[in-house]
Amino acid sequence: MHIGFIGLGGMGAAMASNLVRAGHDLTVFNRSRDKAAPLAEMGARVAEDIAGACTGECVVTMLADDAAVRAVALGPDGIVAHLAPGAIHISSSTIGLDCSKALAEAHAAAGQRFVAAPVFGRPDAAEAARLFVVAAGAPEALAACEPVFDAIGQRSFLLGDEPSAATIAKIGGNFLIASTIEALGEALALGARGGIDPHAYLDLLTNTLFGAPVHKTYGALIADGAFTPARFAAPLGAKDVGLALEAARALKVPLPLAGLIHDRFVRLINTGGAERDWAALGGLAFEDAGLPPQSPAAASDAESR
Amino acid sequence: MHIGFIGLGGMGAAMASNLVRAGHDLTVFNRSRDKAAPLAEMGARVAEDIAGACTGECVVTMLADDAAVRAVALGPDGIVAHLAPGAIHISSSTIGLDCSKALAEAHAAAGQRFVAAPVFGRPDAAEAARLFVVAAGAPEALAACEPVFDAIGQRSFLLGDEPSAATIAKIGGNFLIASTIEALGEALALGARGGIDPHAYLDLLTNTLFGAPVHKTYGALIADGAFTPARFAAPLGAKDVGLALEAARALKVPLPLAGLIHDRFVRLINTGGAERDWAALGGLAFEDAGLPPQSPAAASDAESR
Amino acid sequence: MHIGFIGLGGMGAAMASNLVRAGHDLTVFNRSRDKAAPLAEMGARVAEDIAGACTGECVVTMLADDAAVRAVALGPDGIVAHLAPGAIHISSSTIGLDCSKALAEAHAAAGQRFVAAPVFGRPDAAEAARLFVVAAGAPEALAACEPVFDAIGQRSFLLGDEPSAATIAKIGGNFLIASTIEALGEALALGARGGIDPHAYLDLLTNTLFGAPVHKTYGALIADGAFTPARFAAPLGAKDVGLALEAARALKVPLPLAGLIHDRFVRLINTGGAERDWAALGGLAFEDAGLPPQSPAAASDAESR
Amino acid sequence: MHIGFIGLGGMGAAMASNLVRAGHDLTVFNRSRDKAAPLAEMGARVAEDIAGACTGECVVTMLADDAAVRAVALGPDGIVAHLAPGAIHISSSTIGLDCSKALAEAHAAAGQRFVAAPVFGRPDAAEAARLFVVAAGAPEALAACEPVFDAIGQRSFLLGDEPSAATIAKIGGNFLIASTIEALGEALALGARGGIDPHAYLDLLTNTLFGAPVHKTYGALIADGAFTPARFAAPLGAKDVGLALEAARALKVPLPLAGLIHDRFVRLINTGGAERDWAALGGLAFEDAGLPPQSPAAASDAESR
Repeated sequence: MHIGFIGLGGMGAAMASNLVRAGHDLTVFNRSRDKAAPLAEMGARVAEDIAGACTGECVVTMLADDAAVRAVALGPDGIVAHLAPGAIHISSSTIGLDCSKALAEAHAAAGQRFVAAPVFGRPDAAEAARLFVVAAGAPEALAACEPVFDAIGQRSFLLGDEPSAATIAKIGGNFLIASTIEALGEALALGARGGIDPHAYLDLLTNTLFGAPVHKTYGALIADGAFTPARFAAPLGAKDVGLALEAARALKVPLPLAGLIHDRFVRLINTGGAERDWAALGGLAFEDAGLPPQSPAAASDAESR
Repeated sequence: MHIGFIGLGGMGAAMASNLVRAGHDLTVFNRSRDKAAPLAEMGARVAEDIAGACTGECVVTMLADDAAVRAVALGPDGIVAHLAPGAIHISSSTIGLDCSKALAEAHAAAGQRFVAAPVFGRPDAAEAARLFVVAAGAPEALAACEPVFDAIGQRSFLLGDEPSAATIAKIGGNFLIASTIEALGEALALGARGGIDPHAYLDLLTNTLFGAPVHKTYGALIADGAFTPARFAAPLGAKDVGLALEAARALKVPLPLAGLIHDRFVRLINTGGAERDWAALGGLAFEDAGLPPQSPAAASDAESR
Repeated sequence: MHIGFIGLGGMGAAMASNLVRAGHDLTVFNRSRDKAAPLAEMGARVAEDIAGACTGECVVTMLADDAAVRAVALGPDGIVAHLAPGAIHISSSTIGLDCSKALAEAHAAAGQRFVAAPVFGRPDAAEAARLFVVAAGAPEALAACEPVFDAIGQRSFLLGDEPSAATIAKIGGNFLIASTIEALGEALALGARGGIDPHAYLDLLTNTLFGAPVHKTYGALIADGAFTPARFAAPLGAKDVGLALEAARALKVPLPLAGLIHDRFVRLINTGGAERDWAALGGLAFEDAGLPPQSPAAASDAESR
Repeated sequence: MHIGFIGLGGMGAAMASNLVRAGHDLTVFNRSRDKAAPLAEMGARVAEDIAGACTGECVVTMLADDAAVRAVALGPDGIVAHLAPGAIHISSSTIGLDCSKALAEAHAAAGQRFVAAPVFGRPDAAEAARLFVVAAGAPEALAACEPVFDAIGQRSFLLGDEPSAATIAKIGGNFLIASTIEALGEALALGARGGIDPHAYLDLLTNTLFGAPVHKTYGALIADGAFTPARFAAPLGAKDVGLALEAARALKVPLPLAGLIHDRFVRLINTGGAERDWAALGGLAFEDAGLPPQSPAAASDAESR
């Protein structure tokens, strides 16, 4: 396929690489041109501007936030202005509900097609083409996107005709991660005050009912107090839970947990945590309990048979 | 081993059966005598009173709540009054921190030993001897209990000298389950209002980052709206999160999530949900969002490749 | 003064009447023309369109929400397009921070002046010219508005140069009202479950530490369960607390109480309360406590000496 | 009347003085004897032990907490053991629901009478005999206590036969104060981030809808950041909101605000605020918003006409 790709950050560059590796004819564009160099070496073309990335059957965007996506897609020289009728814009960033709907409308008005296809997975999963793709849009559009999804992910979940469903699914998923961080932080802090080493407690939890990747990944960061360098910084967590609250408002859904968590993220950012991983939300529970910051397990006291 | 066993409810009866099957010399006692009959047929002795179950090396209690445990252990004709010096009381119920400490003190004062050994697992796991045992107490006492733990569970986690550590670990674990129910309820309700079928959403979640037993079990109950008959009723959930709050108060740990969840349980119970499974906490999120009660997936609209 | 006035709802009509009574030369405009008739009888001119109300030294707007204010002020035939250089737009509606800032910028760009001057008080206070005016803007602009404020209110509070300060002050004030409703609801429900008649309890509270108008007004509505007809309906309360959360997000201020209250408003609206007064938030506390709806004091059991 | 008085802390000493001034025959007892000296000078008798203060028609207790009240009333040489049949124990401390019920039962069993009569007011109000007395108990007992209430307070509120009603009323009142502190803290922090000087904002609030003593007293402390020395320290606030939660649990009333506030008190205490006034709860909102600690108004920027 002839595919355009806009946004070569950590996630985007890895996804674009996998599209090249899968044999697609890829044209990339990034505001900072130097990010495109490694892909050029792999055989991708490098566009001079957004228009140059909009000449194929589809164009994928992987950008920082709603403002960036709106600028790239809806701006005067944006995707909507240049994409051919019938061609598809695949938006893989985590965006808000309003933004998703605005994109769907603008593309429909221009005779183009829009597929929301956000992904779950960290950069290492993106590099290994092991992302989970959550996609929604017109059935034929989804079918046409299949080769793209197959090149970047291990599995796709199709959520129907409305692109916004995929948008919501991703937002809700990130909210669930943040909820897990908060809950684990509280439980491990309670345990610590009750005399249980956090690593021993986590070992128990992850080997019984709480063995999902989300528990293991974030539980270890909290137990270790390993919040820097951030892999996904607290302000991004605040942004994503903020998107959940924004969607909740539009859809009239009370989300008490999301409200609580968002406020704790804002506090974390305001009190020195802006550079920390969003797992540091779990560290607040330790701080509030009057506990010293956690530290990595040296030789854990945990025993288990 | 010569073991006493007090409390033959669903969990207790299953655990006692496995002790008999493992070849132990078991003497059981239950306030309602008829519950003891099946165990007698398997070969257990049946005691006439608490004292009659306190003649061996250890006695296991599996009772409804703190009040029952205090009555059985600390009452005038209770375990403390009858257990031999050096013998061990293994408390497997989910009890509160105060209760756990009171038992430890009373047994110590009587020259007896106390091990807190609550378990994770539903009755089916108890029957299959697949429980997870979380135990704490003096090292020699734990070592002596090993045959008991091996007969009832698939794995034991030892949390050190202080029995209360095991008590807290269990309370914290149940709080984490309740947190997961609340978070899943909110996320699935947000999705439903955003056009995502709850079963399709749950399929996505459990096949990506949220694949722990706790997600699958409670997610399915919420997506199906399958809250009756209760396997673990809402008042029990309220009780256990209440134990977390009680422990949190004693240990000076803020638990904002636990506070939020406890109040939602009380509301659920006060507004017609007293007979429902604690997963119905997740149903409140649907109700608050103005959604009709969920229903089982007939032929789910979910697609996934 | 020659003053324009746009928006003749309950509050606006009363404020406009007082401007006429105070001797000002008033030109009114309202989308539904019939609302203007009573003012015409009092001596006001009636404009045909927005432009017609923008010919004086200042124009006051009192409209339903941000969307209405933006349309009237920023739309193609709006205030910004027609107001004379140096003339003042006085915005008295409760609007959001973003909206307030957009108005300030647009008027500045057009060489006009903008004063945010929201008011505290219900329609009866507006009729009696007993409103409290909270105003902010350039000092000379505020000085020029003084006759307007004096005609409609009993007292003005000036909050400095930035119009958005007055906007925030009003939003924060409405959040405080909602907080009081929630707190009183919880306290009266606790009392009711503890055997205290809500009217007796309210009598005690309002005659001791809690004697502010906000306590008396909303406490009586809650104790009486008098939620219809609404004087200020729940969706308006949800909107205003939503404005507080939106401002809080922009200003990076955690507002845990506001989050909790907003979600309860959404629940109230989704479960049959859309037509009720926002005091019905306090009724939720009774519902959650399993209490029957409150009812007016017939002959209160309260005694006091 | 011949009255006993036990507990001569700041509040108790002031109340006892007023009983002497009103001409009653007072016998006081305090664990630390030196506190009794000033009363002896005024003409009170000083008892050697609890029994010595139990020889009159009634005995008033004003003690630190439930534990103290239980010890003094229910202990082996306590009030119940020594009070004459028909004599009245007037408990004026803020105590918990369980404690109140235990006292009522114990006195009833001993043929004595129990009146719960907690008071609203700070030490200066106690000295001025300007307390508000909230009382409940058997009608004849209340009538008999009238001279006591009149000597210490400006007004009494009688809440019926069940002493626990007065207990709950006081607990609920203190919860309302804490709610007001939290709400004002959030609103003033939002304002401060929005460019409004806290003193100017408070001036506006207290002169419009929020003019109750609770707003003025605590608003000023928050705007000034005047949290030391504590007049009522944070741990006492945590205790009282904890009593509200304990009563809420017993009465099955969800109190989401109380849960939120209690956790913030615990955090405050754990992070250096144990010596601060409970108004410092409002300071947390400033801290969480990334604002510097507030400071007293030098020459406030506030203007008002």
